[in-house]
Amino acid sequence: MKKGEKGMLSEKTALGIKNGSAIRAMFVEGKIMAEKYGPENVYDYSLGNPATPAPEKLKEILINEIKNEDPVILHGYMNNAGFPEVRRALAENLNRRFQTEFDENDLIMTVGAAGGLNITLKAILNPGEEVIVFSPYFGEYKNYVQNFDGVLVETEPDKETFQPDLADFERKLSKKTKAVIINTPNNPTGVIYSPETLTRIGEILTEAEKRFGTDIYLISDEPYRELRYDGKEPDFLTRYYENTLVGYSFSKSLSLPGERIGYVAVPKAARPHDDLVAGISLCNRILGFVNAPSLIQKAVALCVEEKTDVAFYDRNRRTLYDGLKELGFSPFLPEGAFYLWLKSPLENEKEFVETAKKHRLLLVPGSTFGCGGYVRIAYCVSHDMILRSMESFRKLAEEVGLHG
Amino acid sequence: MKKGEKGMLSEKTALGIKNGSAIRAMFVEGKIMAEKYGPENVYDYSLGNPATPAPEKLKEILINEIKNEDPVILHGYMNNAGFPEVRRALAENLNRRFQTEFDENDLIMTVGAAGGLNITLKAILNPGEEVIVFSPYFGEYKNYVQNFDGVLVETEPDKETFQPDLADFERKLSKKTKAVIINTPNNPTGVIYSPETLTRIGEILTEAEKRFGTDIYLISDEPYRELRYDGKEPDFLTRYYENTLVGYSFSKSLSLPGERIGYVAVPKAARPHDDLVAGISLCNRILGFVNAPSLIQKAVALCVEEKTDVAFYDRNRRTLYDGLKELGFSPFLPEGAFYLWLKSPLENEKEFVETAKKHRLLLVPGSTFGCGGYVRIAYCVSHDMILRSMESFRKLAEEVGLHG
Repeated sequence: MKKGEKGMLSEKTALGIKNGSAIRAMFVEGKIMAEKYGPENVYDYSLGNPATPAPEKLKEILINEIKNEDPVILHGYMNNAGFPEVRRALAENLNRRFQTEFDENDLIMTVGAAGGLNITLKAILNPGEEVIVFSPYFGEYKNYVQNFDGVLVETEPDKETFQPDLADFERKLSKKTKAVIINTPNNPTGVIYSPETLTRIGEILTEAEKRFGTDIYLISDEPYRELRYDGKEPDFLTRYYENTLVGYSFSKSLSLPGERIGYVAVPKAARPHDDLVAGISLCNRILGFVNAPSLIQKAVALCVEEKTDVAFYDRNRRTLYDGLKELGFSPFLPEGAFYLWLKSPLENEKEFVETAKKHRLLLVPGSTFGCGGYVRIAYCVSHDMILRSMESFRKLAEEVGLHG
Repeated sequence: MKKGEKGMLSEKTALGIKNGSAIRAMFVEGKIMAEKYGPENVYDYSLGNPATPAPEKLKEILINEIKNEDPVILHGYMNNAGFPEVRRALAENLNRRFQTEFDENDLIMTVGAAGGLNITLKAILNPGEEVIVFSPYFGEYKNYVQNFDGVLVETEPDKETFQPDLADFERKLSKKTKAVIINTPNNPTGVIYSPETLTRIGEILTEAEKRFGTDIYLISDEPYRELRYDGKEPDFLTRYYENTLVGYSFSKSLSLPGERIGYVAVPKAARPHDDLVAGISLCNRILGFVNAPSLIQKAVALCVEEKTDVAFYDRNRRTLYDGLKELGFSPFLPEGAFYLWLKSPLENEKEFVETAKKHRLLLVPGSTFGCGGYVRIAYCVSHDMILRSMESFRKLAEEVGLHG
C-alpha cells in the first residue's frame, strides 16, 4: 500500500466513505442549496430532525439542575449504566404505562438509540452470526451489524401493506440467527406493525429458538414509540416475546436528537438477564461511550410525563398526504413516526430523486432502506414549508407525467 | 451452545465480563463500602473523577444557552463532526496557544476522549494491524484496540524514569504497526514525557515510515494536557511528528467527565488529511455516537478560556506525596495529571491492594496498566479526604512492615 492514499484508512472505512450515507449527504447538500437559493426556497425532506421544540418544561428542569445540583455529581462519572435514580424513574414510568415490571437493574442509559443498538449488538454478536431486518429498514442497521462482523439478512418487503413478510421471515431464520431488529412505528414507511403481526413474530421466534436450540433476540428500536396518529395507543414489544431487548431514544419524543440520550431495557424474562445487562453495560464502557451524558440523563428522568406535539406532525401528515394525492402521486398514509412513504412515479427512484432536486425538493431514495422504487419524505418540518413546497411538487408531478 | 448460558453473549463480551475492569469494579465496591462504614470512612483513590467543580462560568453559559438559543438548534442534529462554529472556536483557541494552524475542517467533536479514540482506531485499523502502547498505560486502550480486531503491543516499562523505553519501542515497530498511542501527562504514572523523548519518538516514527513504506499514526490521548505542576507549560504533540492525531477531552480540564465531550484534531500534515477527517466523522456516525452531545458542545466552545483549579490538585499532590514518603512508602512525584504512582511494598501488588482495602483504602493495581509491582492512587479527591486517610496509610505501612 502506498503512503498517503485512501488505503491507509481501514478497508471498511474506505468503503464506507465511498458509499457514503445518502441521507447525510443530502443534509449537507441541503445546506449548500440553502445558501444558493435561500433557505426558504429549499424543501429539505431528507432528515429526521424534529421540527418541534423540546418541551418548555425541559428548560426549567435543566436550569434548575444546573443551579441547584452539585456540579461534581451533575457532570461527573456514574455507573456505566447511568444514574440509578434515573433508571428507576424511567422503569417506573414504563411499568405505569405498559404494565411491565422493570426496575433500575434492567435499564442501561445510552448515547441515543444508535448507541444502544451498537452496544447491544456488540454484547451478543460473534463474527458471522446473522441479524434479520424487515425491509424496508433504517439503512444504518447494516453498518451497526457490520461493526461487529455480523451478517445482515433482509426479508423481502410486502409492497401491499409494508407489514413484515412473515413467510419470508420464516425462510430466513437459521441456526446462525442471533437477532432480529424490529422498528415500529417504522422508519421509512410510517407503518405500525399490527398486534397480529407482532404476535406471529413472537410465535415464529419462540418456535425457531426451540428448533435450533438457540436464543434469538428481538431488538426493538423504538425512537418513534409515542408518535402515533388517529388515537393509536403505544404498544410495548416485550409482551409478545420473552427475549425482547428494547432500545429507546428521547430524540423524537422530547425533540433532543443532538443530545444523544436513550436507554436499553432488558426485561427479566430475557435470557440470560444478568449477563445481558452486564454485557451491554460493559460494551457501553469499552466501545467508548462510557456512559450516557450526565446532565441530560437527569433531565429526561424529570421529563417523563412530557409529550411531544403529535398534533403538529399529524397536521403535516394530512396536508402532505392530501396534497400529494391530489397531484396524482401515490403516497401511503403514515400511521406513526414522521415519514411518508411514496411510490416513485419513475421506475428508478434515484432518477426521481434527482428530478425532485431540480425543484429544490430533497427526498431520500428507497434503496437506502433496502427497497427501491419508493422514496421517503420526512415531514418533521414546519407546516409552512410543506405548504410552500406544494408548488414544487406540482411542477415535479408535471415533469414526471402525473395528472392530478 | 445451550440456551440461557453465558455463551449467548458474544465470546469477546463474555470474556470481558469475566475479566472485568479493576477500576470500575472498585468504583462499585467503594460505593458498597461507603454504605457500610459511612462515606467519610472510605478512602476511594480508585477513579479519575475530578473533585473540583466545573467552572462557575459554565453555569452561566449553559443557562444562557438554554434560555436564549432556539431549542430546535440547541438540541438538534448537526454535522456528524459537530457544530461548525464550535469547531472553529476550538481550532482558534489551539492556534493561539500552540501556534498550530487548525481550522473547523480539522476537528471532529467526540463523545469524550474514549469516543474519539474508538472512532479514530475504527477509521484506520484493519484486523491484525498493531497498535503500540508505552507501559504503563491506561488499560482501556487494550479494549479499544481489540474492538476493531487490532493487536495491542506493549513496550517494556522503564522503571527508573517511567519515560517510554525507546530502545524497546524501536524493536516493537514493524510493517504491521498502524498506530502508537501516547498519553502525556501520563495515566497512571503522572509522568510528563520530556521534549527529548517526544523528539526521539518523532524521529523513530519518521524513520520507521520510510523503512516500511507505511503511514504510522501517533495518537495522542490528551485528557490531562493542562494538568501540569511546577509551572510546566502544556506541550502539543503535532510539533514532533506529522502523522499525529490528537484526542482531547474536557473531562478533566473543565471537570465534565460525565458529559462525554471532547474532540479529535487532524493536523493538515497528517496523511491523507481529508480522508482521515471523513473517515473519523463516518465512524462517529456508524459506531452509534452520531455526534457529540449538542448543548455541551456549544457550552465548551464558550468556555475555552476557563481553567481547572490546578492549585487544588497540586496541594493534594504535595500532601499525599510527602505523607506517603514520611510513612516509608516509595511514591513517584507526579509532574502532571492527578495520579500518584507508588511502588508496592509487597512483591505482588494485588496483595498490597487487598491489604489496603482492610484499611478502607481503595488503590488500583499496576497490572491494570500493564505494570505489576506498583499501584495507582488517584488524588482527584477532597484535600480533607487525603488528610483523614493518612491514619489508614499509617496502619497499612505498619502492616506491610514499612518504617517511616
